[in-house]
Amino acid sequence: MTLKTREDYLTSLRNMKKRIFLFGEEIENYVDHPIIRPSINALAMTYELSHQEQYQNLMTEKSRLSGNFVNRFTHLFQNNDDLVNKIKMQRVLGQKTGCCFQRCVGMDAFSAIDIVTNKMDKDLGTDYNGKFRKYLLWVQEEDLVVDGAMTDPKGDRQLSPSEQLDPDMYLRIVDENDNGLVIRGAKLHQTGAINSHEILVMPTRALKENEKEYAVVCAVPGDAEGIIYVYGRQTSDSRKLEGGEIDVGNFQFGGQEAVVIFEDVFVPWEKVFMNGEVEYTGLLVETFAGYHRVSYGGCKTGMGDVLIGAVQAVSKYQGTEQASHIKDKIVEMVHLNETLYAGGIAASSEGEPTDSGTQIVNMMLANVCKLNITRFPYEIARLAQDIAGGLMVTMPSEKDFEHPEVGPLLKKYLVGADNYPTEFRQRMLRLIENLTLGTGAVAYLAESMHGAGSPMAQRIMLRRLADLDQKEDMAKQIANIPNENQDNLKPD
Amino acid sequence: MTLKTREDYLTSLRNMKKRIFLFGEEIENYVDHPIIRPSINALAMTYELSHQEQYQNLMTEKSRLSGNFVNRFTHLFQNNDDLVNKIKMQRVLGQKTGCCFQRCVGMDAFSAIDIVTNKMDKDLGTDYNGKFRKYLLWVQEEDLVVDGAMTDPKGDRQLSPSEQLDPDMYLRIVDENDNGLVIRGAKLHQTGAINSHEILVMPTRALKENEKEYAVVCAVPGDAEGIIYVYGRQTSDSRKLEGGEIDVGNFQFGGQEAVVIFEDVFVPWEKVFMNGEVEYTGLLVETFAGYHRVSYGGCKTGMGDVLIGAVQAVSKYQGTEQASHIKDKIVEMVHLNETLYAGGIAASSEGEPTDSGTQIVNMMLANVCKLNITRFPYEIARLAQDIAGGLMVTMPSEKDFEHPEVGPLLKKYLVGADNYPTEFRQRMLRLIENLTLGTGAVAYLAESMHGAGSPMAQRIMLRRLADLDQKEDMAKQIANIPNENQDNLKPD
Amino acid sequence: MTLKTREDYLTSLRNMKKRIFLFGEEIENYVDHPIIRPSINALAMTYELSHQEQYQNLMTEKSRLSGNFVNRFTHLFQNNDDLVNKIKMQRVLGQKTGCCFQRCVGMDAFSAIDIVTNKMDKDLGTDYNGKFRKYLLWVQEEDLVVDGAMTDPKGDRQLSPSEQLDPDMYLRIVDENDNGLVIRGAKLHQTGAINSHEILVMPTRALKENEKEYAVVCAVPGDAEGIIYVYGRQTSDSRKLEGGEIDVGNFQFGGQEAVVIFEDVFVPWEKVFMNGEVEYTGLLVETFAGYHRVSYGGCKTGMGDVLIGAVQAVSKYQGTEQASHIKDKIVEMVHLNETLYAGGIAASSEGEPTDSGTQIVNMMLANVCKLNITRFPYEIARLAQDIAGGLMVTMPSEKDFEHPEVGPLLKKYLVGADNYPTEFRQRMLRLIENLTLGTGAVAYLAESMHGAGSPMAQRIMLRRLADLDQKEDMAKQIANIPNENQDNLKPD
Amino acid sequence: MTLKTREDYLTSLRNMKKRIFLFGEEIENYVDHPIIRPSINALAMTYELSHQEQYQNLMTEKSRLSGNFVNRFTHLFQNNDDLVNKIKMQRVLGQKTGCCFQRCVGMDAFSAIDIVTNKMDKDLGTDYNGKFRKYLLWVQEEDLVVDGAMTDPKGDRQLSPSEQLDPDMYLRIVDENDNGLVIRGAKLHQTGAINSHEILVMPTRALKENEKEYAVVCAVPGDAEGIIYVYGRQTSDSRKLEGGEIDVGNFQFGGQEAVVIFEDVFVPWEKVFMNGEVEYTGLLVETFAGYHRVSYGGCKTGMGDVLIGAVQAVSKYQGTEQASHIKDKIVEMVHLNETLYAGGIAASSEGEPTDSGTQIVNMMLANVCKLNITRFPYEIARLAQDIAGGLMVTMPSEKDFEHPEVGPLLKKYLVGADNYPTEFRQRMLRLIENLTLGTGAVAYLAESMHGAGSPMAQRIMLRRLADLDQKEDMAKQIANIPNENQDNLKPD
Repeated sequence: MTLKTREDYLTSLRNMKKRIFLFGEEIENYVDHPIIRPSINALAMTYELSHQEQYQNLMTEKSRLSGNFVNRFTHLFQNNDDLVNKIKMQRVLGQKTGCCFQRCVGMDAFSAIDIVTNKMDKDLGTDYNGKFRKYLLWVQEEDLVVDGAMTDPKGDRQLSPSEQLDPDMYLRIVDENDNGLVIRGAKLHQTGAINSHEILVMPTRALKENEKEYAVVCAVPGDAEGIIYVYGRQTSDSRKLEGGEIDVGNFQFGGQEAVVIFEDVFVPWEKVFMNGEVEYTGLLVETFAGYHRVSYGGCKTGMGDVLIGAVQAVSKYQGTEQASHIKDKIVEMVHLNETLYAGGIAASSEGEPTDSGTQIVNMMLANVCKLNITRFPYEIARLAQDIAGGLMVTMPSEKDFEHPEVGPLLKKYLVGADNYPTEFRQRMLRLIENLTLGTGAVAYLAESMHGAGSPMAQRIMLRRLADLDQKEDMAKQIANIPNENQDNLKPD
Repeated sequence: MTLKTREDYLTSLRNMKKRIFLFGEEIENYVDHPIIRPSINALAMTYELSHQEQYQNLMTEKSRLSGNFVNRFTHLFQNNDDLVNKIKMQRVLGQKTGCCFQRCVGMDAFSAIDIVTNKMDKDLGTDYNGKFRKYLLWVQEEDLVVDGAMTDPKGDRQLSPSEQLDPDMYLRIVDENDNGLVIRGAKLHQTGAINSHEILVMPTRALKENEKEYAVVCAVPGDAEGIIYVYGRQTSDSRKLEGGEIDVGNFQFGGQEAVVIFEDVFVPWEKVFMNGEVEYTGLLVETFAGYHRVSYGGCKTGMGDVLIGAVQAVSKYQGTEQASHIKDKIVEMVHLNETLYAGGIAASSEGEPTDSGTQIVNMMLANVCKLNITRFPYEIARLAQDIAGGLMVTMPSEKDFEHPEVGPLLKKYLVGADNYPTEFRQRMLRLIENLTLGTGAVAYLAESMHGAGSPMAQRIMLRRLADLDQKEDMAKQIANIPNENQDNLKPD
Repeated sequence: MTLKTREDYLTSLRNMKKRIFLFGEEIENYVDHPIIRPSINALAMTYELSHQEQYQNLMTEKSRLSGNFVNRFTHLFQNNDDLVNKIKMQRVLGQKTGCCFQRCVGMDAFSAIDIVTNKMDKDLGTDYNGKFRKYLLWVQEEDLVVDGAMTDPKGDRQLSPSEQLDPDMYLRIVDENDNGLVIRGAKLHQTGAINSHEILVMPTRALKENEKEYAVVCAVPGDAEGIIYVYGRQTSDSRKLEGGEIDVGNFQFGGQEAVVIFEDVFVPWEKVFMNGEVEYTGLLVETFAGYHRVSYGGCKTGMGDVLIGAVQAVSKYQGTEQASHIKDKIVEMVHLNETLYAGGIAASSEGEPTDSGTQIVNMMLANVCKLNITRFPYEIARLAQDIAGGLMVTMPSEKDFEHPEVGPLLKKYLVGADNYPTEFRQRMLRLIENLTLGTGAVAYLAESMHGAGSPMAQRIMLRRLADLDQKEDMAKQIANIPNENQDNLKPD
Repeated sequence: MTLKTREDYLTSLRNMKKRIFLFGEEIENYVDHPIIRPSINALAMTYELSHQEQYQNLMTEKSRLSGNFVNRFTHLFQNNDDLVNKIKMQRVLGQKTGCCFQRCVGMDAFSAIDIVTNKMDKDLGTDYNGKFRKYLLWVQEEDLVVDGAMTDPKGDRQLSPSEQLDPDMYLRIVDENDNGLVIRGAKLHQTGAINSHEILVMPTRALKENEKEYAVVCAVPGDAEGIIYVYGRQTSDSRKLEGGEIDVGNFQFGGQEAVVIFEDVFVPWEKVFMNGEVEYTGLLVETFAGYHRVSYGGCKTGMGDVLIGAVQAVSKYQGTEQASHIKDKIVEMVHLNETLYAGGIAASSEGEPTDSGTQIVNMMLANVCKLNITRFPYEIARLAQDIAGGLMVTMPSEKDFEHPEVGPLLKKYLVGADNYPTEFRQRMLRLIENLTLGTGAVAYLAESMHGAGSPMAQRIMLRRLADLDQKEDMAKQIANIPNENQDNLKPD
């Protein structure tokens, strides 16, 4: 069975015993927990759509490893069509869930690890790539969710891993024996970690020669002994505990981040794909980041579509749909959103083959794509708040609307234009609140800022990739300045 | 007693019986309700500082009505120093509370009503101004909080009050007798309404000849019979119910908005300051808006100071304080924040006297000030999220940090640079979350957008005030184009 | 001979007798005129590179009409690779010339006319497409430059062609006989018109039923009787007459726009490709605009590369290369420039086939691409002026640098860091001046704004293409609002 | 005579023999030179308006030194009204001339030197302030133009004055005797230098102990022996030599910058106001910069008014005046322009007294004002180009419009809407071209960027003045973080 159904997925999660903490308590049944469940629903959509005919082209692809059709989230990118289809799939999922669906990090990590382990094997004679592809074949056949775990706590940002006061500030190998390794540390901001079957650990930065213990790539089951998950809180998260639906904004779906703590977790050798080769850590981080920075050109534009649709609806409910400034602001939202999409498409359609046979995105355009992602969603959200009006943040709770005395009064006074029911307005304003200030804003804004690297990380890459010397030569050619070696220049 | 203390204020609130609904329940002791109390604390700061020597120049002023020193929030602006000191007072209060302190609407309404009633009396021979000043003298002597209630539900935005399906979409006079008026309707987005002693009702727009019933300015006690308050929800509001302090972000202070419903409320004639004079409604709305748009140049810059301070602190805790891009972003935040302040100062220092003796702000600069307020706080917040890092939205709840097993692990892995305690980082990140995504963002972002009029309202005023003909003449003078009447022009 | 050389091209121009006016005089030898020649050089680069092996893949393509390799500027786009290669070719030419190379309008017009005439023939049974392809085959075989002439004077913008006081405000058919048509009117802003062999006339807007006389697509030789060219002036254009080289900034290359007046010009039937079919004018304008809006994602990014290279060079000459804020501004310039490129690539790689077999760009992304072009070059130019420093606009003329007394003083005081010769600094600053304030700015800024349609034209297309209903449905789905017909809705 | 007339001023210039080079030639009659004269006209407006009753309040002020009314350009700022009136005067002059009127640098230098020499005298027992006030009294009585000369060539920006390869890269004292000093060096970007009676030399940066020779403040006549002026070129400057008027855009007025070379110029002791006191150079530079950065909030908003008026006029000529997007863009231009003005007003109205009795602007707001000046004029210019349309850069020369054959054709085809004459359109488009790409853009854009210090200089000041510690304390107070000394902190 290479394509799990939504139900298969839920069942598989129920079969995993994970240690999860949330609001100071250990959670037993995490699959049905009202705060966690929406994030599972979002991820489950990646299974659900893979069985809908309309989306099969986007959601599945023929595996290079098995020849079987697999969920695209487990597929190694083979060509630019693969890369472009990834973006389109992500946009659809963003549209369907209005949030982060949490399965991209693992997908992007697969191709990155494939490229790097292939290079390691060629350079060093190791067999990491063989082991990794065997692992990935299993992931494909079982249609698993794999969490790519990269971000370490980092402690004092001015210090490298080996310089930290506490050596555990970056996850590291603390022991090794005939059967495998033992790792210790933590990974922060782990998107979808709790909803995953496996965790694929990777280093978070380029490492130096004396930091071999930090150079580890390996996979462990999500319920391996020693792993502790602490659920991250999101703005307005506890509305999900109130029993209502409207005030949640996006009742069905949501994102999820967790702190994942590795308390001396054992990893068997067959799931170890890097062990001390510090000189490949930079390449791995950059390659993964390249893929993942492009992914945001898909998912965030899908979320943007939902937000644009929501303000369009609200403008009808409020009777402002035909105002020229409202129309103009919606056009601006569309423009910014599609600019983000263009970044994702361009970086993908300009991908290039690598030695492993896996296709890499265009790295310059990948970073350009992401850097815009750190800006435009904020402006789109600002425009959405402009159009939504103040009621979005002053509207009473849905329980007030149900109260026998004040409920009818609220419905009377907050009724929409053209007899649109008050509830439509409530629901749509709460959705906009969700996306611009609530749990959805975690994905749409803060994650856009920091996911796949904060803006400064993209700027550093842009500087490296820009080939300023070549541009300088172009300018010299036109300005008719000799391009000789500077040492030969004589001052006037 | 012209200057109440904080305790006096709290006691006075306790003495008022108001009907308040929140989360579907009627609240008995609203003064001590954990969701409401922070907003009372914020307002109480306007009393507290009036007794601190350091702030007495800013917080109090000699009343023109009585010659006594009164709280500046009850003072009629007499000159540009008054207007400028208002801004400085508001900035200090923003800095002290990190939120909206809710007493400005009433203050700005006093001077607006004074100007307009004075003009009405001169034009029409009425005695509204005399009644109003007598009322205001009482407000000053009792040091009361007065909520200026302007924003009606508006129903279908394309229709004027008289065209609405339901005539109550704008508050209106439904009856009148020898003793006074009876009003019905609702006012939305009422900042600090529940924390006020009095409600000062005003129309929300210029009215037409056939809309006299909507042209009413009057005052009623906050606990008048027939008034119902429904508390507006804010992002993450229910964190205040969790029993902790850290996750609230700003535990002590907060803003408040409510829907205020007037179910046939009686108003005695001595508290009626307009009754059907539709031709003065436009002037009143504009004059009030002028004052209030400038106010944001004070309070929001104070909140901006807090946010800048918070990211500066976080950059220390994370070891990024010395990174040049961090420093540059903080400079940008300061620059934008001070540009907002400059707008407030300029509109105030260029104020002008009116016939009533009350000083009006420069209307052009007032609208310019506010229009920037609808933009820059969003960019300041975006930069704050950039500097804060992803942990702001992925950090576990404070209860997890207290858990015997995972608490120590979280403290270990999330410790700050230079041994800054993890708790410092928690607290500061939660404050930034509060200001950019939580309850504080309601005031810092959404209220900046819509309070005192949405951006389009400012743009309309800018167009009216810009004197484009004069500018066109300047250009013609320089381009040497004759400035004759167009009718005389002959085509080439 | 399907690929002319640069010399062939110059000779072919010399053989054409055109009536050209410039600075109030009729020009005899336009090929060697110092103001006109740089624009011919720029266009000649499209011939020159087609013979350089390094660029042959980009510059030439196998014609669908003849099977021969032709200059890509005469090629009908067959697939997305063709569309993407166009962008890459344009970027290279922008890099080589630092200006507009003037051959794109015709290229983009070919494919647009092919699509529309094909549709007309299918719908109407005409033979426009056959005639057009025969014409284009000749263009390909002769490797001609064809000016696409679209923009009419328009007179009063509020009036349609038939409503204008003067019916000639839009080019129109004034006579017709057995041999062909006679046209009258003018086309403004004609890029490269004087450097072209042929002029391909098209309507500038969608026309109404009663405006058949304006619905004409036809080709005429550039030296047809009745055509008058009046050369447009550019900022600092007369520096080219001063005899020096440095102050010109870009001495070799430049753009060109002209007013082209058609004084009753005869067109034989075989060169008429539309004659009164008003219902196809809208499609033609949009299709052409679609192609051409994407073109700017190529050429302007090439110019951006030159400008970035120029400021990078100047920062060396001035000793500011290592300043972190300078590096950061250059990164920003690169980011914006590559965002524009991403728009061009995305709109091209997402192209789609049409019935004629010619590939059309993605229209949504095409308009998005162009709308960014109306913004980012201005910000790139602003950053360039920031880095360049004030000397760019205060530096004495090159003749002063050659003066026996003050020349040595200027060279002494304006010498660069690290002994970079003063002349390098002069040349590079003049190039930046050219691109941000001079003749180059005409192409880099004003043409970016208005070429292929002013920004409002793109916004109108974005609104039409955005499918807001679909987005609204997505939002409703997530907000759980029934998507039934509104008529069935009941108010609460 | 304390108030010269325009004619007095012109005569006084004619009486000065200056060595001026322009386009490689030494100019004899500079007052009537067609390139130079517009800049003299602009400066002359400061005399002309001082005699017009309407402007006397703005243009003149009672001197503290003599009690006489003097031209405000020679006045020491005594209070905030003085500072605010300066801004208003500058705005009027910007409106009247549409360019830089060149008399502000000297004005701002007077008050800066007064403050610093007063402090030097108090600290060091020198008599610089007495000498300076005597000098200034003479300037006031004679109503002289004094050029404040600050900016040195700087050579390699990474090196301080004493580290440069050529010690003359910063102007310095090269000799001294009983009668005075001898100075050598150059000052770049000297606005209005040639139009001035006196040159007031100041150091350009804070100097170190071993750089005493560079720490010189002194005045010399503009025609002192050894001074050479080399006129800076501006975009499209030579249009002024063509004999026409229209294409110049702003025919009457213009700015002027020159390189001023000091070839061992003698300065008598009575005109030396600093001689080696390096420790006061930083204060002088900052104080001058503070004043001057605010000045731009006046003059540039006046230029902005002209540009807004020009696009408003053009929109009428083109029939686009009523389009909602055109109106919206003009509102945006007004908004940005008034934001700049607000910066100037706020920094001035918040000025503070100094020990010398001269009032200093608010330094924080001064830098904020200028930093916006480096941004908004560029966006205003971009919007102006949007509204103006492409014709601004493709319109033939005015001589073509006068040609017997093509002139009538151009007038026919380029006629405005509503029979506005073609010439109106020509003139207004040329004015917009002047202000956004031509000689006017030198003042409106490049000078806005670099005058009174490039943007990085303002950012450095903002960082210094922001008091981040205080803001951090505000945040800590609200976040309830103890504000104890960090050394006492214990990690968790």
